[in-house]
Amino acid sequence: MHFKLPVAAFGVFVFGVLAASVHGAAKPEAETVPSYPDATHMNTPVDYREWIYLSTGLDMSYAPRIAGTANHSMFDNVFVNPEAYRYFKQNGVWPDKTVMVLEVRGAEGAASINKSGHFQSESLMGAEAHVKDNSRGGWTFYSFDGNGPGTLIPKAADCYSCHEAHGAVDTTFVQFYPTLMPIARDKKTLSTAYQRENSGK
Amino acid sequence: MHFKLPVAAFGVFVFGVLAASVHGAAKPEAETVPSYPDATHMNTPVDYREWIYLSTGLDMSYAPRIAGTANHSMFDNVFVNPEAYRYFKQNGVWPDKTVMVLEVRGAEGAASINKSGHFQSESLMGAEAHVKDNSRGGWTFYSFDGNGPGTLIPKAADCYSCHEAHGAVDTTFVQFYPTLMPIARDKKTLSTAYQRENSGK
Repeated sequence: MHFKLPVAAFGVFVFGVLAASVHGAAKPEAETVPSYPDATHMNTPVDYREWIYLSTGLDMSYAPRIAGTANHSMFDNVFVNPEAYRYFKQNGVWPDKTVMVLEVRGAEGAASINKSGHFQSESLMGAEAHVKDNSRGGWTFYSFDGNGPGTLIPKAADCYSCHEAHGAVDTTFVQFYPTLMPIARDKKTLSTAYQRENSGK
Repeated sequence: MHFKLPVAAFGVFVFGVLAASVHGAAKPEAETVPSYPDATHMNTPVDYREWIYLSTGLDMSYAPRIAGTANHSMFDNVFVNPEAYRYFKQNGVWPDKTVMVLEVRGAEGAASINKSGHFQSESLMGAEAHVKDNSRGGWTFYSFDGNGPGTLIPKAADCYSCHEAHGAVDTTFVQFYPTLMPIARDKKTLSTAYQRENSGK
């Protein structure tokens, strides 16, 4: 999954549409097949909060923490569609039509009876999807700001080359998903690039 | 959900049994009805990582952060069984046989390409369940250390009175679950104690 970008780049959005779809969904079963209104957009996954949870990070970044951003702590939660998760459990790799959603929420501090540490804000700050769809050229990132469908992130963007170079499995950051990493080891599906980068550690 | 206790109290366990059940589950559908080997234990929920994710906190505590514990940061992830989640979405309250599982994982720092912030450890540090079972006297906490069934936490323990006094809905900390809090507001199911405590904020 694509890390949270530095705050200034990612922007801060109140994510009304996505939040509403999460709360108001009537169907018990989530629809998980990606769909697209046109060539450069992806429809918002409706029930992704009811998919399989992979993990949460706090203020993860490719870069050392930037001075002055300490008061903008954020959580990122990652979910994957259940069909893809079940396939990964069996095989250690992602099938076609895998959809991973990363949502970003603010890290709230002291409130109610919580006196230290952080919990997650109700409002979404933004979201991204990382979608494996062979009918659309393989893995693609989409960025969601709460206003309608997500926008395709151009393939020349750094996220593609970085995921390619550092993702533990098939351009995804399985190294940060605690229940998937043992499966990838067991199935021997760790990428050559990842193994080389982490050999001797 | 029961907050993470201070590190010294909670203890640090490598959670082999629970972790193995998460990774090795063959069934696509999770079994979510609580079961008990005897009057003071609860069998480990097998597939709780495939239940509905509620939220994650970092180093949440009832007490201000204790000096000297800064290098033991921990994430707590909370899951609830799908049947209970669906009932809550419709009604804003928890049904009989609600099972909430809180798992604790270490907060890892710089590793792989992550240069700042935190991601979650593969090994579990411990887990607790908060179970509403009217055949067993209502809400009950169980503590899991990875060695067999969970152990009932006696009803005189502080967690019961604290959840009773401060939980936003039916002795549970819905105030820290970002997608449930709007439902509770909408359904007007916030507890009187919570509303009184938070009035004027």
